[in-house]
Amino acid sequence: MNFKQLATKYKTPLYVYNLDYMSERYKELKEAFKGRKSILAYAVKANSNLSVVKHFGDLGSGADCVSIGEVRRALLAGIPPYKVIFSGVGKSDDEIREAILSDILYINVESEAELFRVEQIAKELGSVSRISVRVNPNIDPKTHPYISTGLHDNKFGVDIDSAKRMYVLAKNSTALDPVGIHFHIGSQLTHLEPIYESAVIVADMVRSLLAIDIELKFFDIGGGLGVTYDKEVTIKPYDYAQAILGAIKGLDLTIICEPGRFLTANAGYFLTKVLYEKQNGDKKFVVVDGAMNDLLRPSLYNAYHKIEALVEDKSKTKVVDVVGPVCESGDFFAKNYELPEVKRNDLLIIHSAGAYGFGMGSNYNTRGRSAEVAVKGGEDRLIREREEFEDIIALEKEFI
Amino acid sequence: MNFKQLATKYKTPLYVYNLDYMSERYKELKEAFKGRKSILAYAVKANSNLSVVKHFGDLGSGADCVSIGEVRRALLAGIPPYKVIFSGVGKSDDEIREAILSDILYINVESEAELFRVEQIAKELGSVSRISVRVNPNIDPKTHPYISTGLHDNKFGVDIDSAKRMYVLAKNSTALDPVGIHFHIGSQLTHLEPIYESAVIVADMVRSLLAIDIELKFFDIGGGLGVTYDKEVTIKPYDYAQAILGAIKGLDLTIICEPGRFLTANAGYFLTKVLYEKQNGDKKFVVVDGAMNDLLRPSLYNAYHKIEALVEDKSKTKVVDVVGPVCESGDFFAKNYELPEVKRNDLLIIHSAGAYGFGMGSNYNTRGRSAEVAVKGGEDRLIREREEFEDIIALEKEFI
Ligand SMILES: Cc1ncc(COP(=O)(O)O)c(C=O)c1O
Ligand SMILES: Cc1ncc(COP(=O)(O)O)c(C=O)c1O
Repeated sequence: MNFKQLATKYKTPLYVYNLDYMSERYKELKEAFKGRKSILAYAVKANSNLSVVKHFGDLGSGADCVSIGEVRRALLAGIPPYKVIFSGVGKSDDEIREAILSDILYINVESEAELFRVEQIAKELGSVSRISVRVNPNIDPKTHPYISTGLHDNKFGVDIDSAKRMYVLAKNSTALDPVGIHFHIGSQLTHLEPIYESAVIVADMVRSLLAIDIELKFFDIGGGLGVTYDKEVTIKPYDYAQAILGAIKGLDLTIICEPGRFLTANAGYFLTKVLYEKQNGDKKFVVVDGAMNDLLRPSLYNAYHKIEALVEDKSKTKVVDVVGPVCESGDFFAKNYELPEVKRNDLLIIHSAGAYGFGMGSNYNTRGRSAEVAVKGGEDRLIREREEFEDIIALEKEFI
Repeated sequence: MNFKQLATKYKTPLYVYNLDYMSERYKELKEAFKGRKSILAYAVKANSNLSVVKHFGDLGSGADCVSIGEVRRALLAGIPPYKVIFSGVGKSDDEIREAILSDILYINVESEAELFRVEQIAKELGSVSRISVRVNPNIDPKTHPYISTGLHDNKFGVDIDSAKRMYVLAKNSTALDPVGIHFHIGSQLTHLEPIYESAVIVADMVRSLLAIDIELKFFDIGGGLGVTYDKEVTIKPYDYAQAILGAIKGLDLTIICEPGRFLTANAGYFLTKVLYEKQNGDKKFVVVDGAMNDLLRPSLYNAYHKIEALVEDKSKTKVVDVVGPVCESGDFFAKNYELPEVKRNDLLIIHSAGAYGFGMGSNYNTRGRSAEVAVKGGEDRLIREREEFEDIIALEKEFI
């Protein structure tokens, strides 16, 4: 990847995505499940750029969506409705209505109250809504509390007993068709055991539903596969698939997997230029033109991102904080990071920025969001324009 | 404030700002400094809606800006250039150029490296740039580490010795005119002592500059005045002003104050509707239609916001987590919060949302940002349209 050329051509700060890497990861995971019917439903939230979503669609991917906006993205990107899933704890009536009318694969229901809304709306539409229930298996996924979702003190899903009641209700409803079961216990998972335990719990539930004549078709194992940001040892797709296949032995189910981070995180790079070096007391800072409004993960999760300085001479290093221009001490990319000596206009590459990067971007401090570029087969192309001042104020200018 | 009517008229989630309250706060603070020449330069970052900025401009306010985008907002809102200040640790060449060409009051310089850039660019433009130096007084402001900026291990400002060198350099430069001195030690300050100590240090520096014939005009005390989110006891404007006036006794200086939160935080309300109630194990959740993409402060700083339920019967209460639809456990407005019993479609008012609220908003999960409404003299009006799907994808649609 010729980062210097890309930075010159498109300016900084800039997001660059390697679509070929995304393809590889997609194929690797898909391959792991080859013994079974499976759909990989790309978790759009991880990187929702339309061209990225389309890229996965072209590979045969479905889409896991958590808002009607994401459903629209998936459909606009050409993913067929029958591969689109709509999850999320807070779906509004309008969203449910549009999802039913779009005839997507199923709605992942996350509470009893929601099930009633889906039923009610499907009735009003004279339609039948395919649903799946998100089960919260109460297993500790051993990840960052903000992205851990599989314990009862999390807002996600419902416990086993509630789920059973919901399936019975759905089975008896003329407006609901229970077709799947879903669990997702957290993101950036690096331990297989909790996933396997969850799959066993949920597969048992499938069996007990079978016993009362509720026959599900889809076993939706969520996303969550971790990636290497630093030195994390990650779960191998083969082992992952084997664990899942082991858990559902004897059941005739299509596996749905909703990877986000796994497919995109390490395909993405955030390019930023050095503006200034400064020293306060003993503390050294490298001030760059990207900021927390571009990439929030370090601020929000204290997340680690590898930073590479594109300089010739890497022999002399300094321990620095890499910080952005935003007026918050929380605006940093790394603290106490060993970096080669850099000077004004040198380029820094922030790695692993392809997932939960641009999508969490804001206009804080009236900073326009970065452009996004895709690289495929050695060719680069713009997939989102840099946001300019006029874009930022477009919805408020006339009211001044 | 008739929140129910506003929610019906403009839908939820919604930001509502009481401009009259902003006026009161502005006047109270301005009044506190009445013994002296002073400019209140509203910190645009706190709430950068153009109509809010214009409101302060109409009251006579200047603007403290931290990006050229904010400078443009201030000028567009009718604030005269001679009341506009440009601060921030990472100003790009283009930003510096435009600031000089706009003939704003001064550029707040935050490093020696930046001073050289400003000088260079002013020279290229055949101009003279008025500057102030942001001094880092190395005083602990006793606030949240993310918004604490006055210690050496922060990226902001320069130490006293560097500042002195910079003033001498500026004085000797044909392209620089040192007119001010600046400090800002943090946000949400509730202790007067650190501010006073900082003011004393910086005033001493003004005196020692005078001794070498560098005569500054502006004493810029930054922003940072805290507000009451919960039970915080805040600094009284009168005491604040007295402390500052005490510190600069004998000096002929115009005071510049850059309040943000103080003017806007408690003027703002975030209105959100209950979508679902749910229970996981013992844990109760109220799922609302607003989310972390609308108001990030609880996630980012674990910030407290008072939440009021607009229900008739407040006699029975429950301890709940108030959470949004975004697929992160970090998406919450409050945890273990005692709330009256609420049901679907009830309205919750999240208080103190006028500062660092909308401005940190994102499109995470492809959620459009809320509309913003201003209320003044009992009249409400839209000041920013709700962001729709088409707005969100506008810059990427053509590349799909
Ligand atoms: C239901 C669901 N599926 C899939 C994902 C994707 O997770 P990841 O990016 O870790 O694969 C998430 C992430 O939060 C999710 O909530
Ligand atoms: C230089 C400067 N001035 C003013 C402010 C406004 O602070 P507050 O909103 O706490 O008044 C900030 C906030 O970060 C700042 O960095």
